[in-house]
Amino acid sequence: MSCEPVREDWKRVLKLTSPEDAAKKLLEILEIKPKIEEINVIDCLGRVLAEDIIAQQDIPPYDCACFEGYAIRSEDTINASKSSPAKLKVIGKVFPDTKEIPKVERGQAVFLVTGAPMPSGADALIKVEETKLEDGHILVFRKVEKLENVAVKGEDVKVGSPILRAGHVIRPTDIGMLMGLGYSKIKVYAKPKVAIISVGKELYLKSLEQKEPPPNNYAYVIKGLVEEVGGVADVLGILPDDVEIVKKAISDALERYDVILTMGSCSIGVNDAVPDAINGLGKPGVIVHGLTLSPGKPAGFGVVMGKPVIMLPGHIVSAVAAFYALCLPLLAAMTRRSVGNVLPSIYAKLEESEESWSGYRFLRANVRDVDGEFIAKPMHGGANVMMTLIKANYFTILPPRTEVKKGEKIKLRALSLLDTLLQ
Amino acid sequence: MSCEPVREDWKRVLKLTSPEDAAKKLLEILEIKPKIEEINVIDCLGRVLAEDIIAQQDIPPYDCACFEGYAIRSEDTINASKSSPAKLKVIGKVFPDTKEIPKVERGQAVFLVTGAPMPSGADALIKVEETKLEDGHILVFRKVEKLENVAVKGEDVKVGSPILRAGHVIRPTDIGMLMGLGYSKIKVYAKPKVAIISVGKELYLKSLEQKEPPPNNYAYVIKGLVEEVGGVADVLGILPDDVEIVKKAISDALERYDVILTMGSCSIGVNDAVPDAINGLGKPGVIVHGLTLSPGKPAGFGVVMGKPVIMLPGHIVSAVAAFYALCLPLLAAMTRRSVGNVLPSIYAKLEESEESWSGYRFLRANVRDVDGEFIAKPMHGGANVMMTLIKANYFTILPPRTEVKKGEKIKLRALSLLDTLLQ
Repeated sequence: MSCEPVREDWKRVLKLTSPEDAAKKLLEILEIKPKIEEINVIDCLGRVLAEDIIAQQDIPPYDCACFEGYAIRSEDTINASKSSPAKLKVIGKVFPDTKEIPKVERGQAVFLVTGAPMPSGADALIKVEETKLEDGHILVFRKVEKLENVAVKGEDVKVGSPILRAGHVIRPTDIGMLMGLGYSKIKVYAKPKVAIISVGKELYLKSLEQKEPPPNNYAYVIKGLVEEVGGVADVLGILPDDVEIVKKAISDALERYDVILTMGSCSIGVNDAVPDAINGLGKPGVIVHGLTLSPGKPAGFGVVMGKPVIMLPGHIVSAVAAFYALCLPLLAAMTRRSVGNVLPSIYAKLEESEESWSGYRFLRANVRDVDGEFIAKPMHGGANVMMTLIKANYFTILPPRTEVKKGEKIKLRALSLLDTLLQ
Repeated sequence: MSCEPVREDWKRVLKLTSPEDAAKKLLEILEIKPKIEEINVIDCLGRVLAEDIIAQQDIPPYDCACFEGYAIRSEDTINASKSSPAKLKVIGKVFPDTKEIPKVERGQAVFLVTGAPMPSGADALIKVEETKLEDGHILVFRKVEKLENVAVKGEDVKVGSPILRAGHVIRPTDIGMLMGLGYSKIKVYAKPKVAIISVGKELYLKSLEQKEPPPNNYAYVIKGLVEEVGGVADVLGILPDDVEIVKKAISDALERYDVILTMGSCSIGVNDAVPDAINGLGKPGVIVHGLTLSPGKPAGFGVVMGKPVIMLPGHIVSAVAAFYALCLPLLAAMTRRSVGNVLPSIYAKLEESEESWSGYRFLRANVRDVDGEFIAKPMHGGANVMMTLIKANYFTILPPRTEVKKGEKIKLRALSLLDTLLQ
């Protein structure tokens, strides 16, 4: 549909780049060096590990009792049975604060509480409930295997074994392991700090009248997405389409944030101010303006003071599509992760045939679990139909001239971690 | 293996209940009335909606321009072509602050910026880049369809239509929709407040020597799991196995928390203090003690002052298994959700055959994506082998006497939302 630039009242023309190439260019030009910070292990849930974790100690640190019971020598029970139990003399009890641990000789047993170190001589533990106590002796009614109910030194973790790798997102169980290995603090990648600036005279005028809720609701969608993929974001307010005002806001934000996202005012219209503002802040300025992505075409990015300024379009579906095309790989790279390590994917059967045309297509779908199979229903609607994003929980960016037939399985990525819940 | 209670030095015997029955009993006896609080919409990411959202207004509120362009009457372009364009007189421009919007008559056009209301008379919009400007007229080179590039009043959302339901977990896009519908504040279920108390003389003595990291690392695993399923948890420290001390701690915690989780000291050993502490705090006391779950057998719960006190075993795998069996359904119910709406599940092909015995089995697995198929490798290890939880990312609780063959697909639930990343 597009034709040659014949109109003097157009400010510019989009030079379209594929979303893949745009993301690649963005990462290449930035030479990202993720920031690393040291935080308390107990505060590291969901953070991204910035160091490889190699065990510096064994877990458990010594052979110990898995249950409350008696440490014995397994050889004493070889012929034990219900009718002919082994009878072992209880020569001591080991509690956590017991200083001297008796040695177990043949025919002897020592009472241990759970976790107590195995006495020397003993090589197995029989649970208290499997024994009978008689005159200071226990009766054991079966053969006990060597090392039965004993947690052997290093059985869980051996010194020197790799536990977790840099780039790993720390889960609840990882915290327990890290603490168990003696870590109080740990190196993680700093969360990328993102500023979101809404631009548009209509929005600006509305904001003068309407304070609550602020009318830049789309900015809060993007803030939520940034936070879902491991960043922190501040919504910095609403500006009119005025190049000088936008320049000043971007310039101020560059001092405090790692990434600037603008929303709106980035197309080719007479009032669109963001590309000129970026170019006005110094070289290299705007690098990509225009994506072969539908919706999302007017998106792009520039680089100012070595930092990325991403231009997201004003329509919500376009903005979200451009977020996944540009910001997702950027934020992933800023914590040395792949996109797949930021948002999970599943395979689902399409309920209707879908195709892309000459460009890439941001395909949203509602995935549900139907009798053990994931079925994806594509959501149709224009760049401004927010409801398609409410109904959808997964997406893909279809390459150009792709046809996916009804019933075919395709890989879809969750719109956010919360979308994996298939609500 | 268990035999009749013949030992005077045992404190009690476990009366085993199935994990399903235990969870059912827990929910029945509590008569949970979730607390509701009102919070700012911009702070509601990941929170659980406590009200149905019905649209109170149309989005968009009036017919408006999807792009920058000219509002026209489509009938004027019926015969337009490249060689014979329609020529329309531009009679005005509408910017966001334009007060008087001209009416479009036949043969006329009005310039609109994106989002501007459609002038009366016009029924379509042609994008600026598809026109040519000549002597105050535009040339249109093709037939424009009725309503082309027009966002029709209510096209996204119609007054009265249901948008989100109570129990829905709020995602980034939902925030944008709620704000777009005019909400500043919204009702959500309060996050259940959970206290975690570690009990065990060995741990207590260790805590006197080792401050950093605190030796109750397992408690921090449970804290992370609570937070991953929508609660908030405080780790309240480490107590010796002393019934009076444990009673006091539970009693204090009951004043400030909705749920008390104890870890350790809940089996049948001579020192196990938690069941007596719960019973000592008043009726009904301990309701279930012992699950037909492996690992996790010594788990159970009591009710004190109408609040649940869940006994998690001291071994980490047992504690986690009991968490999923008892705490997961409890915390889900406290925000009126099903378990599936708290932790997502997938279907994966088992790499090895697995079976359960006379009881339920907590089966952990590492799921990975192999050429578009989820393959689950079961993780084997005892109740104290934390590394199985590090390697695993999904789990299921196999019912008694179940055999799942190699290659069979089974439903597995993520250990946490972060585990869906298949790291």
